[in-house]
Amino acid sequence: MTGTAATQGEQGKVEPPAANPSRYRFRVALHDIDAAGILFYGHLFRHAHDAYEAFMASIGFPLAEIIRAGDPLLPLVHAEADYLLPLRHGEAIQVELGVLRLGDAAFTLGYRFRDDQGQLRARARTVHVRLSPDRAGSAPLPPALVAALQAWRWEDETP
Amino acid sequence: MTGTAATQGEQGKVEPPAANPSRYRFRVALHDIDAAGILFYGHLFRHAHDAYEAFMASIGFPLAEIIRAGDPLLPLVHAEADYLLPLRHGEAIQVELGVLRLGDAAFTLGYRFRDDQGQLRARARTVHVRLSPDRAGSAPLPPALVAALQAWRWEDETP
Amino acid sequence: MTGTAATQGEQGKVEPPAANPSRYRFRVALHDIDAAGILFYGHLFRHAHDAYEAFMASIGFPLAEIIRAGDPLLPLVHAEADYLLPLRHGEAIQVELGVLRLGDAAFTLGYRFRDDQGQLRARARTVHVRLSPDRAGSAPLPPALVAALQAWRWEDETP
Amino acid sequence: MTGTAATQGEQGKVEPPAANPSRYRFRVALHDIDAAGILFYGHLFRHAHDAYEAFMASIGFPLAEIIRAGDPLLPLVHAEADYLLPLRHGEAIQVELGVLRLGDAAFTLGYRFRDDQGQLRARARTVHVRLSPDRAGSAPLPPALVAALQAWRWEDETP
Repeated sequence: MTGTAATQGEQGKVEPPAANPSRYRFRVALHDIDAAGILFYGHLFRHAHDAYEAFMASIGFPLAEIIRAGDPLLPLVHAEADYLLPLRHGEAIQVELGVLRLGDAAFTLGYRFRDDQGQLRARARTVHVRLSPDRAGSAPLPPALVAALQAWRWEDETP
Repeated sequence: MTGTAATQGEQGKVEPPAANPSRYRFRVALHDIDAAGILFYGHLFRHAHDAYEAFMASIGFPLAEIIRAGDPLLPLVHAEADYLLPLRHGEAIQVELGVLRLGDAAFTLGYRFRDDQGQLRARARTVHVRLSPDRAGSAPLPPALVAALQAWRWEDETP
Repeated sequence: MTGTAATQGEQGKVEPPAANPSRYRFRVALHDIDAAGILFYGHLFRHAHDAYEAFMASIGFPLAEIIRAGDPLLPLVHAEADYLLPLRHGEAIQVELGVLRLGDAAFTLGYRFRDDQGQLRARARTVHVRLSPDRAGSAPLPPALVAALQAWRWEDETP
Repeated sequence: MTGTAATQGEQGKVEPPAANPSRYRFRVALHDIDAAGILFYGHLFRHAHDAYEAFMASIGFPLAEIIRAGDPLLPLVHAEADYLLPLRHGEAIQVELGVLRLGDAAFTLGYRFRDDQGQLRARARTVHVRLSPDRAGSAPLPPALVAALQAWRWEDETP
C-alpha cells in the first residue's frame, strides 16, 4: 500500500530544478496501449512533449506563456524515436531530457525513456527552430534560452 | 523559480492514500488544446481515466493487474461530462474523485475538475459494471472492492 | 439506405448532403483500442466529433471557417455516451447523426454507432450553446443554422 | 492521378487496391490542432498509422486479423517525421505511402503528406520488423508480404 502510494506519487512528477529538471515521470496508461497490447508508438511523442513542456517551464520558458506572447515561437521541424522494448500498461517510466545540439536558431532535444530498473526502453529526439517574430523565417535563439539550454547539454548527440 | 518548480511538482501528482487518494493533478498540455483554443472535450475523459487509474491503484486494484488477471473486469458502460468553464493551456487542474453510487454489480464515480482557485471548471461521471468471469453477463462486485469504494462515497449523487 | 450505407464503404466517408449528410463511417483503428482490448471510451467522442465536423461542413457550417470568423462559436457544454457493446479493432462503424433538441440558443445532437449488421453498439449526445459574439454569454442560434439543423431533427430525444 | 485524387474526395477514403492502395486522405480535425494553432506533431503519426492500416488491408494483410492470428507481427522499431509546413484545421490532406526499403526481416515505409495543391507539407518514415512466432527475435518476412510490398516500392529511399 505504501509502496503503491510511493510509486504512484511519481506519476508525472517533475523534480525541482535544484535536483534535476530534466527528469519527468509518467505511468503507462490504459489508453496508451493499442490493439497489439503495447504503447502505441505515436503516444511516445505525447509523453515526450509533456516532458518537454515540464522542462521548458522549469527553465523559465513555460510554453503557454510563450505562445500567448507570440515569441519565442519554437516550432518542431523534426521528430524521431527508436522503440527498443515495448512499453506495457502500468509501467512507471522516467524520461530523461537533455540538449543534444544547440545552434544559432535551432536546438535538438534528446529523450531517454527508462523503466524502474533503469533499462532504456525507448529514445526520442526533437528539433526545434525559432521563428522570427514576423514568422517569415527563423531567428537567433534568445540569449536567455541559450544560456538555460546550455546547462542541460548532453555530451554525445545520441539520445 | 521555486514557485514555478512548486507548481510544476503538482503535475500528475497523486497524494498518498493516507492523505486523500481521491485527488489527482495534471496540467493542461499543449496537445489537450484544440482549434478553438480550449481543451478538446474528449480529452477530459482521458484525464478522468488517468485519475481513475491512480485511484484504483491507490485502493489496491491496479487496472494493469486486474486486466492481466482477467478479473474483476469493470467495463465502463456510461460516461458524461459537463463543461462549465473552458480549460486553457498550462492551467493546473485538480481532479477530485468520489463514489456517487455503489450497487450490487455496478458503481458510479464522480469527478470534479477544479483550478488553482478551487473553482469548479468541469465535472464528469462514469458508470462501471463488473463482468462475470465468463464474461457472459454482470456479477456482484468483489467485497474487497465494495469495502474500498465505501471509503470514498460522496454524500450527494452529483459530481 | 442499406444501399447508401453499402456504397459508403471506406472509413470516414460522408455522403454528399443531397444523399445523407447524417451518416459518417470509420474503421476502429489500432490506436483506438486500449489495454482491455476494446475501444477506449474517450475515443468514442473523438469519432463523434469527426462525424460532427463532417456534418457541419455538409450543412454549410465548416468548423474551421466558423472558428476563423469567430462566429457563430458553438462550444460544447455537455457530452455523454452509452457503451452497449465493445468496439473491436478493425470493425467498420457507421455513425448516424441527428438533432435531438433545437432550442433558442442551444442544440443537442445524437449519435448512433452501428456495426455492419446495423446493430447499435454505442450512442452519444452532445449539447452545444451559441456564444454571443462578445463571448459574454449565449446568443440565439443564427436562423440559417436553425434551418439547416431542422432538416435533421430526430423524432425522439434519445440517440 | 489528378482524377484519382479528385474522386477520392472525402476524408479517410482509400482507393480500392486496383486503383491505388497507396493513397489515403483525411481532413485535419479540430482535435488535431494544438495550443499553437497547428497540427500537434505527435498526431501526424496517428494519421500515418491510419494510412498504414488502410494500406495493409488493401494488400491483404489487415492488422486486426494479423494480430488475432499472432503472426506475422510487425512491430514498429523506428519512426520519424519532418514537418515542412504546418497543417491547419480543416485542410484536406492526402497521404502517399510507399516502400522505401525491403529487407529480409524488416521493411521501411515512407509517407508523404500533401495538400490539395499537391504541396508536400510533411513526410514520415516507419521501420517495421517481423517478430518470430515465438517472439524471441526477428524472422524473415512472409513471401506473400514481400511480394505485396514489392509492388509499392519507391525508387529513392527518401519519403
